[in-house]
Amino acid sequence: MKIGLLIIATEVLEGKITDLNTRFLALFLKKHHLELFSALTVRDDQAEIKKALVLLLDSCDFVITSGGLGPTKDDLTKEVLGQYLNQTSVYSEVAHQVAEENYKKYDRPYPGKDHVYSFLPKGVTPLSNSTGLAPGLFTQIHDKSILCVPGVPREFKSMLEDHISPWLNKNHKSQILFENMVFRTKRVPEEKIFGELDPELWNELTKFGEVSSLPGMMGVDIGIKLRARDDKELAIKKAHLLTVMENSPIKPHIWHQGEERLEEVIVKLANQKKITFGFAESCTGGLCSHRITNISGSSHSFLGSVISYDNSVKMKSLEVSAELISIKGVISAEVAEAMAKGLVAKLDTDIGVSITGIAGPHGGTPELPVGTVCIAAHFKNGKTNSYKHRFFGDRETLKERFAQAALILLHEALEEIAGS
Amino acid sequence: MKIGLLIIATEVLEGKITDLNTRFLALFLKKHHLELFSALTVRDDQAEIKKALVLLLDSCDFVITSGGLGPTKDDLTKEVLGQYLNQTSVYSEVAHQVAEENYKKYDRPYPGKDHVYSFLPKGVTPLSNSTGLAPGLFTQIHDKSILCVPGVPREFKSMLEDHISPWLNKNHKSQILFENMVFRTKRVPEEKIFGELDPELWNELTKFGEVSSLPGMMGVDIGIKLRARDDKELAIKKAHLLTVMENSPIKPHIWHQGEERLEEVIVKLANQKKITFGFAESCTGGLCSHRITNISGSSHSFLGSVISYDNSVKMKSLEVSAELISIKGVISAEVAEAMAKGLVAKLDTDIGVSITGIAGPHGGTPELPVGTVCIAAHFKNGKTNSYKHRFFGDRETLKERFAQAALILLHEALEEIAGS
Repeated sequence: MKIGLLIIATEVLEGKITDLNTRFLALFLKKHHLELFSALTVRDDQAEIKKALVLLLDSCDFVITSGGLGPTKDDLTKEVLGQYLNQTSVYSEVAHQVAEENYKKYDRPYPGKDHVYSFLPKGVTPLSNSTGLAPGLFTQIHDKSILCVPGVPREFKSMLEDHISPWLNKNHKSQILFENMVFRTKRVPEEKIFGELDPELWNELTKFGEVSSLPGMMGVDIGIKLRARDDKELAIKKAHLLTVMENSPIKPHIWHQGEERLEEVIVKLANQKKITFGFAESCTGGLCSHRITNISGSSHSFLGSVISYDNSVKMKSLEVSAELISIKGVISAEVAEAMAKGLVAKLDTDIGVSITGIAGPHGGTPELPVGTVCIAAHFKNGKTNSYKHRFFGDRETLKERFAQAALILLHEALEEIAGS
Repeated sequence: MKIGLLIIATEVLEGKITDLNTRFLALFLKKHHLELFSALTVRDDQAEIKKALVLLLDSCDFVITSGGLGPTKDDLTKEVLGQYLNQTSVYSEVAHQVAEENYKKYDRPYPGKDHVYSFLPKGVTPLSNSTGLAPGLFTQIHDKSILCVPGVPREFKSMLEDHISPWLNKNHKSQILFENMVFRTKRVPEEKIFGELDPELWNELTKFGEVSSLPGMMGVDIGIKLRARDDKELAIKKAHLLTVMENSPIKPHIWHQGEERLEEVIVKLANQKKITFGFAESCTGGLCSHRITNISGSSHSFLGSVISYDNSVKMKSLEVSAELISIKGVISAEVAEAMAKGLVAKLDTDIGVSITGIAGPHGGTPELPVGTVCIAAHFKNGKTNSYKHRFFGDRETLKERFAQAALILLHEALEEIAGS
């Protein structure tokens, strides 16, 4: 089954928001052993929406539209769907009831029978919305299915989970098993992996399935899509692939096998080994802590952090001495180490990771250009690992790279304790 | 000039990453008084890329492709461009030099004349890459322009800025001035604005230009796209529109006029009035501080924060008493107020904003369901404002909503001081 996504959102094409629904849909389909074939974003314009719908229905069996279902006049999806089906919207008792239920859940009175949500083109089924007010729409025509859901990510998600999961479970039984194996590397550029380190690797991996190479912030994610007819074949292929990777010269650069985010891997390992940690963040301004606390269960090992943006906070809350800052400079291995030590002392964590650097765009000097960062991990037992890095990018990119480097150092520190 | 974006990225359609280039391109074009017409995402598949390129070139004058320019075998953009132009790739001295320069900047040796970057279809110009290794490509055919740039957001950005800004300045002179006026509201649902509060507003605004309504985390952004032939006409329209909004019953809900992010508005106001602030973050886990420190210049007013995720940190670093936590519960107005006060005392800020709540998915109770949050703003002079909210959503959505509510409270606190 080929599935296409039509994003109806002038606000995305004007840069007011970033589309998050494509990613959610892709991951949702993966759970159902399905793939997203393509995604098209158009403006809130009737003619453009209709053209795009026709186009996607031409190459896909199932088209999901996102957005344009609200009550204001720039919401055009239902109108276009009616045009496509050659049906005008008429009052529908079912639609009226669905909308009324959506409102009831928020203790809000439904505006009444004249409201746009009570009207529907013939042949279209209204779908209840468990996280918002606008009903979704579903219809089938000439062996094709069309699903229209609101663009608000929360509503987009719950609509798919509430209505499409059961539908797919009933209507789509996959013949082929597939599993995406991902090997995540660190501290090595893409070209070196497939060039100098292991020139035969790409061809070798291709024997297992489609290969992809995704350069990330501190390394490359190598993906191989395994396909098999049954569990046994899949298990054999998987074991064989693991042996290939085990024997590759790139092995020392692989820090994880799987699709979990670095912060998930960290929280899992720390919780398993009952190791507590926290951050002393300067230039990352809370990003490390934010990423960790995105993970459910992080409260078992992440105790807290000090965001010591201003030097006064480094001194007051982390007991970094003014003298050290003035002698060594605030962006130095010594200050990073003092911050990490201060954090462990203040919060009583097993590991403290500190970050001090310059995210710019202003304030760089020839000796300490924008992009310089010092990172330290201090262990309660007294040991400290620290690194100095230089990255490139704008302010937000640099914050991301600094945070990624700090999380990698934390992961290494956790592995060091876990392995000892 | 109609501009289309073709994103070549299996990783986006598989949900491994979120596309950020659409948003950047949209904002980039806006600066040049241009609009992004549509955006299409396809897999790294030759036939699909070619089909998509033909399709976009059919409706657009200028097509920008993102991705597929790297050195690995899943990088197919150059090959498809060659097919489209009916040209095979041949060794090009210019391409070789451009690639060599890209490498030199990172102190890395260029792999040599056999390297894929030294080959190019005839009629294609290679473009230097100031933030990466892969060269970009540019060509013109039948009055249409095609630009191919790497998909890594940093490289995507710098390519546009380095090569397309000057090209647009030379080749595109806008006849029409336009300005997008945005009025940002808070604490009011979309339907209430255009229903109960001001039913005539939408029609009234339409007289000025295209109207859009974008519901956000704590309110609705109303956008009106003004068009004019010259500065004078634009100024008159603008003044007239401002009067309309000034007299609308929705006026008290407007917290800002403009497209700046809330964190930009906060940093600007705090810097202007020389007011310092910080956060005591529990359930938001650093997100408030992260958003503020994304803004260049935030170091003038944001001193730092304490991420008191664990209760031990609330007690140790914010001096919240164990007794208060046990009597009132950790998610209570009283604990939020104590956290905010503790922060002001510890970091010596003018304002301290605290957040304590439950982001879930586990740990909710009937009395304190997932989504409950208490937020307080404490002023150094002794006053404290606090609120209790209930939001809906998954863990990451809730963190975002909590942070947005906290930043709105901070903004109100800043306005209170600034206005006094």
